[in-house]
Amino acid sequence: MSSTAPSPAQVVRAFMKAMERLDYDAAVQHLAPACEYTNPPPIGTVHGPAGVRAVLEPFFAPTLENEFRILREATDGGLVFHERLDRHRLKDGWVELPVTGVYEVVDGKIAYWRDYFDAQTILSQWPRG
Amino acid sequence: MSSTAPSPAQVVRAFMKAMERLDYDAAVQHLAPACEYTNPPPIGTVHGPAGVRAVLEPFFAPTLENEFRILREATDGGLVFHERLDRHRLKDGWVELPVTGVYEVVDGKIAYWRDYFDAQTILSQWPRG
Repeated sequence: MSSTAPSPAQVVRAFMKAMERLDYDAAVQHLAPACEYTNPPPIGTVHGPAGVRAVLEPFFAPTLENEFRILREATDGGLVFHERLDRHRLKDGWVELPVTGVYEVVDGKIAYWRDYFDAQTILSQWPRG
Repeated sequence: MSSTAPSPAQVVRAFMKAMERLDYDAAVQHLAPACEYTNPPPIGTVHGPAGVRAVLEPFFAPTLENEFRILREATDGGLVFHERLDRHRLKDGWVELPVTGVYEVVDGKIAYWRDYFDAQTILSQWPRG
């Protein structure tokens, strides 16, 4: 790996930046083929770039603007933690969700991603179907 | 500070160990006087050792055994992240809650603690009243 290879924290930030502008094609480039992605119920766990996209794309469809504000970050090897405030502009205004994201980066790709948040906090503010 | 002062990660682990055995007197020794402690709704934010105890003590009253399993940990200065699986033995068996804890340790005491989890996951399994 060359000395200019991005750090695990840089990989995660690049992924979140692409997600912020809902550039799914760019975002999934940062995911390992067998990556595991877990959310609280009822979403659960999916695998691989296509699985991740199948969760994210319909969920973010009603958003007009997204901001993933990174409040705190710590890393240990390929492990990256983010305390985030996710902000989404919907038709009727901004909604906010406090989240912690746990990521593991292996060979420059995200192999594990789990978001911890209170599902009711976001679902109660989200447009239905 | 002497060279034997515990690291921020050690402070947080000692706090969680005391909480595991519900030794509140020992646990709150690790908290700063003005510490801020936040949970998802409906719990919200409390301050200070007495505030923390007022949240934890009634909540854990129905537990017969507690295990805070640390799955992943990363630190940056006084900042400590834990990905945890909290396990609680109630009268009718074990319940589990996936949690991320974010802590800031200042001068050997926890000044900030925020737990991220899905409230419904635990409340739906918890004894009422």
